[in-house]
Amino acid sequence: MQELHQVTHIDNVRLSDDGAAVVIIDQTQLPNRTVYLTLRTAEELFDAIRTLKVRGAPAIGICAGYALYVLAQQISAETFPDFLTELQRQAAYLNASRPTAVNLSWALRRMMDTARRAQSTEEALTLLQAECLAIHREDIEMCRRISENGLSLIHDGDGILTHCNAGPLATSRYGTALGPLFLGRERGMQFHVFCDETRPLLQGARLTSYELSRAGIDTTLICDNMASIVMKNGWIQACFVGCDRVAANGDTANKIGTSGVAILAKHYGIPFYVLGPTSTIDLSCATGDDITIELRDPAEIREKFYREPMAPTDVGCYNPAFDVTDHTLISGIVTEFGICRAPYTESLRAVFRKKKEEHV
Amino acid sequence: MQELHQVTHIDNVRLSDDGAAVVIIDQTQLPNRTVYLTLRTAEELFDAIRTLKVRGAPAIGICAGYALYVLAQQISAETFPDFLTELQRQAAYLNASRPTAVNLSWALRRMMDTARRAQSTEEALTLLQAECLAIHREDIEMCRRISENGLSLIHDGDGILTHCNAGPLATSRYGTALGPLFLGRERGMQFHVFCDETRPLLQGARLTSYELSRAGIDTTLICDNMASIVMKNGWIQACFVGCDRVAANGDTANKIGTSGVAILAKHYGIPFYVLGPTSTIDLSCATGDDITIELRDPAEIREKFYREPMAPTDVGCYNPAFDVTDHTLISGIVTEFGICRAPYTESLRAVFRKKKEEHV
Repeated sequence: MQELHQVTHIDNVRLSDDGAAVVIIDQTQLPNRTVYLTLRTAEELFDAIRTLKVRGAPAIGICAGYALYVLAQQISAETFPDFLTELQRQAAYLNASRPTAVNLSWALRRMMDTARRAQSTEEALTLLQAECLAIHREDIEMCRRISENGLSLIHDGDGILTHCNAGPLATSRYGTALGPLFLGRERGMQFHVFCDETRPLLQGARLTSYELSRAGIDTTLICDNMASIVMKNGWIQACFVGCDRVAANGDTANKIGTSGVAILAKHYGIPFYVLGPTSTIDLSCATGDDITIELRDPAEIREKFYREPMAPTDVGCYNPAFDVTDHTLISGIVTEFGICRAPYTESLRAVFRKKKEEHV
Repeated sequence: MQELHQVTHIDNVRLSDDGAAVVIIDQTQLPNRTVYLTLRTAEELFDAIRTLKVRGAPAIGICAGYALYVLAQQISAETFPDFLTELQRQAAYLNASRPTAVNLSWALRRMMDTARRAQSTEEALTLLQAECLAIHREDIEMCRRISENGLSLIHDGDGILTHCNAGPLATSRYGTALGPLFLGRERGMQFHVFCDETRPLLQGARLTSYELSRAGIDTTLICDNMASIVMKNGWIQACFVGCDRVAANGDTANKIGTSGVAILAKHYGIPFYVLGPTSTIDLSCATGDDITIELRDPAEIREKFYREPMAPTDVGCYNPAFDVTDHTLISGIVTEFGICRAPYTESLRAVFRKKKEEHV
């Protein structure tokens, strides 16, 4: 693990050495300032999640696990049932910080289930500590396996284009879409990575280019509309992107602009890969048409990040946060249990069977 | 012309009522402030062009014509040859403001040729006044004809996607790519226009959405990476873009990102039209491979417009100003002499023959 740490350098979420606080990197201040925050109170932890100081669904889950353990230690209850009641109250409070993040409620539920298995407050604290560390460890392992599978798709010296941020900051250590690049770098390989800046919130410019360049990976930042010329120049051998939800037929919802990258890749004959854990595959969702696209604040386009409005303040804006990439545009979906290929209706079910077998 | 003026509302360059100054809208302050500048001295005129207060190749040409006439009136020369010498000196000075803008040197040369046809300073001033007004009038007429031809390609109620700015601010009155929309609006038609914001310099956000919404055209601003979802939603019936240079085979250089729009349009089965004057068709240029792409300052991606750097200040950036759209992706090239269709090697030559015949 040590050599990996030297490559990525970023500990986005961790338990403090004394176990009494959660230490996070403040993602809102990147890339200008690398500030670590030590969070102890419920209010501090709630605020960090709510204001995106920690972001990326897996990272939020890890943070929530640590947060509940930290708060559990502060509970002064006479009896174990009183302890559980207070812990549940804290979990409900944290869960309200970002109601839409699936990993947040998932991690808090897992921690509560763990506490309820104990017979005493002392035992609960021991189990909770082990559980939050396990959540983190499992995420690292999941990312490592995705990275390993993704790395099998590319070669030393390849040019890779990525969109948005699915790296260590959003997950743990390796990340998903960026994982193969960090893993390859560890093994002495070098890639030439082109990062779409990813308007409107510029996750590619602010986070991806920061993560990659810190790890010594040859990184070139481009505006989203430059992906076409970069591909035409022959500089891209594969596209790697993350995913927010994958439908049963392989249609994939991811950061707005992803479908455009996939169409360009197909036009130029470049493979386009989606990387993510099986937990983002939703077999109950038949196609991308069943995925609701979140519409966000027009101010993100018209105003955010600028000294002054960069468009007429009253002009209409359409600001979808995600789009759906048609399964016919996807060369492969890389999970921790292997790489799915078309037809996805079969290969995605097969990967779930494999997951189930491994857990038996 | 009056009703048109009511629609567009923007006089980007004009001669002052007393003919002693050039009045321009300061494009660098749009859309936040609509400021008109009255320019009288050589230094003021030079600065306005150099710092992009007036931009867009045709608009620069018109401004240069007016500028030389304004400066001509200020020359106090004993003899007509002395007048011509001083006028030439002023023209050379203005020409240095933006050495790469073709229309700048073209307009100044045309004005000098006009002055040299005169027999006296008085006659020269009369001819120069007529000539600079003619340059402006011809550009308006050229834009009107392109607009008329472009309007024949779309229908009332259509959704149109445009990239960058090829409207009145860059040209005169109608503009080229936006011309059909203004002309249609004059005639009571309504369109739903989606403007790519056009990173990195945001001409679409700052200028195109400003021009269109002021003219009462239903305008929606999107980030460049949202073009795919907007097309997929079925909201776009045609794409209209301008051009910086068209090769003999129809390959078209235009603002970076244009080729990506064309590939998306082809994928979704939407016609993609290039609009521009015949002066941008370069038959001496066989294909797009012969067009050199200008590379610009990485600060435009990393820093410009932001309160603080939005990417690591040392991360590499690739910042091409233009890209080439392959002729196979273009449904038609709309000029003031008609609409060219594939095969472009024939239709582009034909339009030049038509131009020549009309001038005979």
